[in-house]
Amino acid sequence: MPATSDSAQSAARALVVLSGGQDSTTCLYWALDRFGSGNVSAVTFDYGQRHRIELECAAAIAAQASVPHTLLPIDTFEALGGDALTDTSIAVDDYDAHETGLPNTFVPGRNVVFLTFAAALAWRRGIGHLVTGVAQTDYSGYPDCRQETIESLQATLRLAMESTLDIHTPLMHLSKKETVELAVSVGALDAMARTHTCYRGERPPCGRCPACVLRARGFDEAGVADPLLAVS
Amino acid sequence: MPATSDSAQSAARALVVLSGGQDSTTCLYWALDRFGSGNVSAVTFDYGQRHRIELECAAAIAAQASVPHTLLPIDTFEALGGDALTDTSIAVDDYDAHETGLPNTFVPGRNVVFLTFAAALAWRRGIGHLVTGVAQTDYSGYPDCRQETIESLQATLRLAMESTLDIHTPLMHLSKKETVELAVSVGALDAMARTHTCYRGERPPCGRCPACVLRARGFDEAGVADPLLAVS
Repeated sequence: MPATSDSAQSAARALVVLSGGQDSTTCLYWALDRFGSGNVSAVTFDYGQRHRIELECAAAIAAQASVPHTLLPIDTFEALGGDALTDTSIAVDDYDAHETGLPNTFVPGRNVVFLTFAAALAWRRGIGHLVTGVAQTDYSGYPDCRQETIESLQATLRLAMESTLDIHTPLMHLSKKETVELAVSVGALDAMARTHTCYRGERPPCGRCPACVLRARGFDEAGVADPLLAVS
Repeated sequence: MPATSDSAQSAARALVVLSGGQDSTTCLYWALDRFGSGNVSAVTFDYGQRHRIELECAAAIAAQASVPHTLLPIDTFEALGGDALTDTSIAVDDYDAHETGLPNTFVPGRNVVFLTFAAALAWRRGIGHLVTGVAQTDYSGYPDCRQETIESLQATLRLAMESTLDIHTPLMHLSKKETVELAVSVGALDAMARTHTCYRGERPPCGRCPACVLRARGFDEAGVADPLLAVS
């Protein structure tokens, strides 16, 4: 989020929070473009997501990009219970553009936890930059994806770890169309064939859940064919 | 941390982060005194601490206080590795009052994670108040126990969960002596016999680790006999 000088960047290393989805994969290639191929690593969280395929996608994407990859378990969300993404007894809502309130996929504090554990891993490795694909445009109603929240968390983590950690959110203000254009410009388009987006975990993607609808709209508006659909 | 009116407090409910130690047990009784016995619950984290006795102590303390108690697992810190409190291959430092830098018991971001998961549990249950025993006096060098960090985290969690969560830190500015005096005043002294403090996990306590040294000094200065030593 903060501006850093080009000279500082050249020596900097970055850790990318990689979910195996379109946005975080775009961020991985954004980081490779910005920090250099020897200075980027990735972390994926195994938090009991209902679609285990996400973890396989993340590993395959990191391998294809030749990026060191760490898988960290988080068993706490399942124990907390009661959300659609980790509780297989709850159905995922179809996309409703007019819905108000939080979607039933909301896991309170999930991104705070992800970024705090990522920051802890970065702290241990002397890595000063985190990269996350959160966006407040098309953000599906998650308050922990907003810039204001991420900025506050960055301040909290700097205090908590006595660090100068920078959290980068290259997609924060991009539309899905612009995210597709960014993916093209940083060379991430081929990797899109390995990403996973569908909330229902279907492959080919269901095309109806909020994540599928937003993804398809972005590719359509950018005038780019989604490599995932060519594979399917 | 924020002041709340007496009328607001009377209807409020609180969740106490209970480790099974002296400070969090004092906070539990502080919360019972402030919020009323029907309005207090407790959460304990099983994060792979080397001393499993802490979990038994927390459960016994909650039972004695007739407070609903939730145990939440966190397997991530062990996976992160490299700290003395969860890695049994690393020895705990003896207390060195002149040491600089962070103690080797520092787990980066630990309190941020604890309070975020506690906030998530509170959010699900409609509980508006968290209580934690962190203190920046005699704080053993943990930057995530300082008021500035907790205030920043409270702001982050309010944004992340769209809530008005209050984080209370009744021990923040108390010396260990004053914490003992508070324990006496809120009726927590008897419960001290069930608490666990020693970093080395010894019972009777080792008397040499930083936690034992600080605890003994506090009881000495308050002129109160430590019930734990009477039991041992």
